[in-house]
Amino acid sequence: MEIKTDKNIIAILRALREAPGPLGGTRVARQIQSYGINLSPRAVRYYLALTDKAGFTKNLGNKRGRIITPDGRKELNSAFVMSKIGLIASMIDELSYKMDFSLAKLTGNIVLNISTIQAENFPKALAYILPVFHKGFGMGQFAVIREGGSQLGNFSIPHGSIAIGTLCSVTINGIFLKAGIPVFSRFGGLLEIKNGQPVRFTDIIAYNGSTLDPLEIFIKGQMTSVYQAARLGCGLIGASFREIPAAAIPQAERIRKKLIKTGLGGILMIGRPGQALLDIPVPEGKAAMIVVGGLNPLAACEENGIKTHNLAMGTLFDFKELLPTSHLEQLLGKEQQSEREN
Amino acid sequence: MEIKTDKNIIAILRALREAPGPLGGTRVARQIQSYGINLSPRAVRYYLALTDKAGFTKNLGNKRGRIITPDGRKELNSAFVMSKIGLIASMIDELSYKMDFSLAKLTGNIVLNISTIQAENFPKALAYILPVFHKGFGMGQFAVIREGGSQLGNFSIPHGSIAIGTLCSVTINGIFLKAGIPVFSRFGGLLEIKNGQPVRFTDIIAYNGSTLDPLEIFIKGQMTSVYQAARLGCGLIGASFREIPAAAIPQAERIRKKLIKTGLGGILMIGRPGQALLDIPVPEGKAAMIVVGGLNPLAACEENGIKTHNLAMGTLFDFKELLPTSHLEQLLGKEQQSEREN
Repeated sequence: MEIKTDKNIIAILRALREAPGPLGGTRVARQIQSYGINLSPRAVRYYLALTDKAGFTKNLGNKRGRIITPDGRKELNSAFVMSKIGLIASMIDELSYKMDFSLAKLTGNIVLNISTIQAENFPKALAYILPVFHKGFGMGQFAVIREGGSQLGNFSIPHGSIAIGTLCSVTINGIFLKAGIPVFSRFGGLLEIKNGQPVRFTDIIAYNGSTLDPLEIFIKGQMTSVYQAARLGCGLIGASFREIPAAAIPQAERIRKKLIKTGLGGILMIGRPGQALLDIPVPEGKAAMIVVGGLNPLAACEENGIKTHNLAMGTLFDFKELLPTSHLEQLLGKEQQSEREN
Repeated sequence: MEIKTDKNIIAILRALREAPGPLGGTRVARQIQSYGINLSPRAVRYYLALTDKAGFTKNLGNKRGRIITPDGRKELNSAFVMSKIGLIASMIDELSYKMDFSLAKLTGNIVLNISTIQAENFPKALAYILPVFHKGFGMGQFAVIREGGSQLGNFSIPHGSIAIGTLCSVTINGIFLKAGIPVFSRFGGLLEIKNGQPVRFTDIIAYNGSTLDPLEIFIKGQMTSVYQAARLGCGLIGASFREIPAAAIPQAERIRKKLIKTGLGGILMIGRPGQALLDIPVPEGKAAMIVVGGLNPLAACEENGIKTHNLAMGTLFDFKELLPTSHLEQLLGKEQQSEREN
């Protein structure tokens, strides 16, 4: 049976997707109110009968409630593109607001990109990833590794794969927001590096005009040369162009220093009040800020023939569970040693 | 020697790129006036000395003037991304204005996409391309084939490659404009086809927020399933969402019929005044129009493992030099026959 996916059904599927377990009609009705949808529990149950038939939800029986099926997730991802227009821009703002990392205490959640690679490619991948972190073209000096079959936040890692979580540069927005500085993310672009320094953007995609993350696109389209930039100082890396209030520049510079000390460096440049940065103008009263793309280390893998699957802004994640990238180097050392021993 | 690429140099390089042959300082000075740059011939010659040194231009000597070098073209492509922001939107408008095809007389220039594939893959590629045209998921029923070493408009085809020129859907904008109907191209997207009919957009990229053509991105990112849509009636094809004045709907419908008769069909849907089309709302006084992506036939190749290199809106091209796709079928027939004979 085919049903016309309407906004009530989308809200119901979304409630089920975000729930930690199965939900009954009453709890779904309560949850979708926060999305601006008012339906009685009875109306919700009517819709749930439809979504059961369409294969989007499954009734576990015995009043245990409903769960969303893989088909339901697929439907949710592709339904109603208009509510997805600017989704990248909206997701950035939503996650900046939701994360609660404290730069003073180094506790709380950060925003994590999730990448998966075939397990057998992992040692080779690390050898491309680490130089990118070294040169400061990755976001901070932290990452997390998880094996297939386990979870990374609410993401289930397929068997046979290894997941690498990298800090998403949206984390910077969240930290600024907690400090009272609103950040407007304007576009993601390919930033040309010459002699180790950023010189200009060669291509851009605006966050509010795209349902796809720009850096994911650049990686898939094999347009980056991050590894070359890390090795030789010349290449194209992913970066993000953002705007902050000009009055906040001194505070932004202080936060930037603190971020670097903490191993969370990622701000490449901060502009002057109302002045263009790398030839990109900003409005009066604003200042430009250029932030490194969190997925750059994974781009380096893709450039060297290692297939990656990348999900920018994949999940909120506890900062305490991240490892310094220096620990990954030891991991790489061990892997190489065991290869020699075999 | 490295020079800071400024807007005067960009204008000079652009003038040389657009010229049919070498230009002297005086003619360059005259040409760049149309880009809003006023420089004396003497100032132009000063800049040309710099660009010669930088390797962007070459002085042919004996007062024959300058030509642009491959490095100069590269510089032009990547320089000043801000003047490229919205370039896709601007290019669409510029080419719609420049083309002079007459639907009544079937003469004049149309806008052509240029795609190249390895020569040895050509027969296989044709077998994927033709079904897409058959099902109406390509733009019109015309194409042009050229061998490596020759020219397609102002594009030089590399040796060992074969170029396929397909009608760019911007041609529709040009035809409408000649009929007095302004077309606003809003975004390129992935259009889901079910049972042969368009049902919704699953991803979009706005033309005025991107320096890259959306359909080129979708093809490179292997996000399309055009061949499946042509074969089984279900899949994701490239399409463009545009807006016309609501008052022009009756005239637009008449043009649409004429286009189909002429073998130039490509308009998939025209909406109603001020009403959403496939759930995408339009402003009051406007009507939506969904047009098929001209590069869809090439997407079908890429989906089946044949590497393609695609340049949307590659050149203006004389309509008379295009072949009906039925001629390509004969070509395919011959190729297959000669394969059997070998």
